[in-house]
This record gives sequence, structure tokens and C-alpha cells, in this order.
Amino acid sequence: MTAAFSDMGGVRVLLASQPAQDAVAVSAAKARNEQLTKPPGALGRLEDLAIWYAGWRGTDRPAICAPQVIVFAGNHGVAAQGVSAFPPEVTEQMVLNFQQGGAAINQLARTFGAKLDVHALSLDRPTADFTQSPAMSEADFIEALHAGWAAVDDSTDVLITGEMGIGNTTSAAALACALLGGEAADWTGRGTGVDDAGLATKTRVVAQGVAMHGGQGDGLDMLRRLGGREMAAMAGAMIRARQLRIPVMLDGFICTAAALALAKTQPGALDHCMAGHLSAEGAHGRVLEAIDKAPLVSLGLRLGEASGAALSLGVLQGAVACLSGMATFAEAGVSGS
Amino acid sequence: MTAAFSDMGGVRVLLASQPAQDAVAVSAAKARNEQLTKPPGALGRLEDLAIWYAGWRGTDRPAICAPQVIVFAGNHGVAAQGVSAFPPEVTEQMVLNFQQGGAAINQLARTFGAKLDVHALSLDRPTADFTQSPAMSEADFIEALHAGWAAVDDSTDVLITGEMGIGNTTSAAALACALLGGEAADWTGRGTGVDDAGLATKTRVVAQGVAMHGGQGDGLDMLRRLGGREMAAMAGAMIRARQLRIPVMLDGFICTAAALALAKTQPGALDHCMAGHLSAEGAHGRVLEAIDKAPLVSLGLRLGEASGAALSLGVLQGAVACLSGMATFAEAGVSGS
Repeated sequence: MTAAFSDMGGVRVLLASQPAQDAVAVSAAKARNEQLTKPPGALGRLEDLAIWYAGWRGTDRPAICAPQVIVFAGNHGVAAQGVSAFPPEVTEQMVLNFQQGGAAINQLARTFGAKLDVHALSLDRPTADFTQSPAMSEADFIEALHAGWAAVDDSTDVLITGEMGIGNTTSAAALACALLGGEAADWTGRGTGVDDAGLATKTRVVAQGVAMHGGQGDGLDMLRRLGGREMAAMAGAMIRARQLRIPVMLDGFICTAAALALAKTQPGALDHCMAGHLSAEGAHGRVLEAIDKAPLVSLGLRLGEASGAALSLGVLQGAVACLSGMATFAEAGVSGS
Repeated sequence: MTAAFSDMGGVRVLLASQPAQDAVAVSAAKARNEQLTKPPGALGRLEDLAIWYAGWRGTDRPAICAPQVIVFAGNHGVAAQGVSAFPPEVTEQMVLNFQQGGAAINQLARTFGAKLDVHALSLDRPTADFTQSPAMSEADFIEALHAGWAAVDDSTDVLITGEMGIGNTTSAAALACALLGGEAADWTGRGTGVDDAGLATKTRVVAQGVAMHGGQGDGLDMLRRLGGREMAAMAGAMIRARQLRIPVMLDGFICTAAALALAKTQPGALDHCMAGHLSAEGAHGRVLEAIDKAPLVSLGLRLGEASGAALSLGVLQGAVACLSGMATFAEAGVSGS
């Protein structure tokens, strides 16, 4: 698949001209929802969720038949500074674990009938330490966006993007801080379980990165300078999904920080995205507020690898099944209120 | 299936001697959970949920293969007082809708691979209006408990009980008020969407019922006097599930009020039960607090018919799949922190 961009200017042009929801399908889905055999509004958030999904799929009776989960993995130069509770080689070890079916996301993807794809992105070439230089050159950044773009199946009907990358909550914190302001400490947390000394290092590293790169461009620029390949790839996959009118379920802090970079580049860039869950990583909730998304579930997960979004896939499947499968009052011969 | 009780005294004896979790399985599941390829605690509530489930199933690697959803339907004498937005005949019409596959619970049960059974309980004989007399005689109450007991499949590995019954939020409100105190208005809400006049009637009816029956016995007595056949049947199914060590996912306000009656009869009677969701019916959250259960999801549903619990079945399935299917650090060759 050839991506529709070859440089960052091309990405911006693409983001500025993305497809919108099908307004006719939204109206039809709303009308159908009002006739279904339930009291008005009794399915709560499931109703708006299903109507939103219908609008992107262009039909008032959509079906979810081919969910795709993609986990992108990348290594981070900042990991060498001791910002994580785990050593950098765990990124590759976990990729093998994904490939062998042993990780949480393998179990969750299977539970909800989703295909799982894993893309390891140049793990032998960590991004540069962003306290020293931009994490990625423009060429590396475009390559990672392309990897995400190309990873999306045309036939997918809901996309979940996730990540693995030791050190990437540090990267996400720096990105969020650069794009949303505040102090480094507002955006750093324990990640995989770093100790007090590690958290202090992490906060210092984030502050240094933001001091060096903050204000040097838009969301895409910040994603290139402070992000990682797996974050750029998630963004690339989100852009491709929008082109194909495939709704996206966002995962946790790192995935949402990558999404934020798109929203800060182009308002409305996340209209096809839903927040899957609220992570226990404290800064996630503030990034969700910044992109104005309310999470579907909140169960204290902080694992990444698409796990929280995969869990909320069940909620979306249930919502869509109700909209498309329920009988109307007239069909069922049930008296209205 | 012959139930292990023939009168209310027998039910109390049974409740006082119910099986407990398998402590060995709980310990084994905890030990296994600590070795899985994820940072400690990174699956949040999924971890405790899976360990709890493992304890009831007696193995550290349980599987969910045969979820059962049972919807019980009953008619209520108090419906004649105009406490609902829908006419009483809707109970039977919705039973037909369940049988024909057109209701929300049909779609949700199918989405999560659950068997759905529907039991209509003497719909042509509504319970007595509890403002005039007890809703059920002891014989009718035992018959409804038996119906619930007998409806549980031996081979089920997770049970969800739900209900349909025009007027039954009024019944649940009276039961909660009688068992937990406070004013009638604290426990009444819009239900299926009753208007202001209907809500005022509902509140008056609840107050009258509580004034007549409150303090006349324990949880079981209150369930007989103020409940409905579908509520008694849900309680009977919960008791049977406990005998079989089948975990139960509680649905919304009416289901939880029936469960409350068991908890008020015998402390610990709901140890095998999990709160599936938080309903938009305001009193539900206070009943959940009273039985010390935190809901898994909160999506504004207020439909009943087991819909909220069915939605959270996906969360339980995901949690159990992770505990039982994930590789350990040693198996996967992943470095620990």
C-alpha cells in the first residue's frame, strides 16, 4: 500500500482533508434507535456509541465482523537514562511473547474475536535520546508513519492501536507536556512501576526534552521530536483508518498522546476515535480531557499493548449488536409508553 | 431438579451453610498472577476479578465456556396504580420479544457467547398490590424461588440473572427502603421513564408498602412481602449458583435489590456475586454500596433484562482469559523488573 504522503507537509495536507461521518447514516441510525424495543435512552452510552459507529460505517445497521488490533513496538533512546522499571531488552522479549501468544493482548484479542498483528519497528535502532536531539529524523518519522498506515487492513471494521516500548511513558509525558503545557511532574507517573529515584529521573528527562523541543512546531513536529516509532506508527494507522472510515478505539496514555499529536495538528482529526478506557497512569485522564473523549471503561489497567481498548471492544460490539439486531416496537408488537 | 428447601425456614438453613471459595485455588491463582508477563498490578481490577473467579471455580486456570443468562418475568399488582410509563401487558409482550430474539439482551447474550433462557412466571397472576397485603403468599414465594433454583444449568460457569416486569422498580424501591431505611423518595426514580405525576404516585406507593410491611421479618420476608416473582426467582437462582460454586454477575437495581434480600438474611450470601454495572437508576448505586460491591462498568444503562451484567460479562471473560492464558516471565523468557 502506498501511503498518500511522502513528507510532513503531505501529512498535514491529508489531515486537513479527511472524510467526515455519513450524516444520512447518522440520522437513519438515530431514527432506528428511537423505535427499538426499550424505553428511550435505556441503553445509556451504548446508544450514542452505536450511532457514532453507524455514521462512520455509512449504514444504520452496521456489523462488526473484522476487528483488528495492531501492536507497534519501538525502542527509545531515553530508556538508557533509567526511566523505566524494566530493561530495554524487554521490548523485544515482549514482541516474541506477542508472537507466541503469551501476552495479555493475545488473550484479550481472542476473547473479543479480533485479529492481532504485531509490528516491531527497527528495535535495533532506538530513537535518539530526546534530551540530546530530536527522537527521529523526518525520514525516520515518515517511515514510522508509513509503517502504521500500511498495517491497517482495508477490510477492518474497527481498529485498535497499541504499543510496547520500554521508556515510552517518558516519551508520552514529554509529548503531552509540550502540547498541553504545565510542569513535567504533572505528566510523569510510575509507568510500569518505576521507583522514586526513577520517577525523579523521568521527570527531569521530560523537563529537559520539553525545554529543548517545546514550541518548535505543531503536533506532528512534537511527535517526531519527543515520540517514538511505535507512537508515530499508531498515528499513521489512525490516519489510514480515517481514510477508510474505520472507527478507532484508543488505548491508554501512550496511544492517546500519539492521538493528541494529530488533534493538535488538525482539529477534528480524532472524530473517528473513541476512548476505550481510562488508564491508572494519572496523566491519561488529562490527555483524554484535552481531546474531549470520555472513556468507556475504567478498570485501573496500565499495561498498554492495546489491552484497555481491547477490553472495551466488547462494549462497542454490544452497542452495535443492539442497534442493528433489536426489533422495533412495531415489529415486536410491543406497546409504547 | 428438587430444590433443597420446601419452606422459608429451609431457605434460611441453606443460606447459613453455603459453600465458600476454594482457598487453595485462590492462593494458586494469586501466585500465578504474580508470574505473568506484565508489570505487577498492570491489569488493574482484572487481576482481582480473575482470582475471585478462580477461587469459586476451584482452579488457578479457569475457563469460561458456558455463560448462562436467565431473564425472569413477573407481573406486579402495584402496576395497576400507574407507577410505570408502560402498561402491564408490556411484560408479556417483551417475553415474546425475548423468545423471538428481538430484545437488547438477545443481542448482548449472543455478542458474549451466552445462552439465554427466559422464564415467564405466572404472568396471568400478578402479585398482590403490596399496599394492600403481602405481594406473595409463602407458597407463591417458595414456588418462585424454586423456579429460579431449577433454571440454573449445572454446567454453567457464570450466571447472569435479569428481569422483566412492569412496575418492578417500584417493588425494588420498596424492598430497598424496607431493608436499608431512609425515605421512600430516596429509593424511587424514573424507572422506564415515568413522568412527574407517576413518580409522585410511585413514591407514595413505596411509602405505603414500607409502612405496612417494614420490620415484619428479615430479607426473605421483605422479598416475599414487597418483591415480585421475578425477583424471588433471581434470588433462588443466586442460591442455586452458590451451591454449584457458579459465580454470578449482578445486573441493575431490581436484580441487586433481590440480592440485597439475601445479604440481609445471611451475611456473606453474595460472596459469589459481582456487580456487573452501575445503572442510571439512582438508587442502584446506594444498594451496591450497602452490599459492598463496586460495579465493573458504568455506562448509563437502565434497561434491566440482564443487559448491564451481560455487557460486563466481556470484562470477566477478558480477565479470566488473561489469568489462564498468559505466559509467565519464565515461560516467555522476559526479564523481570
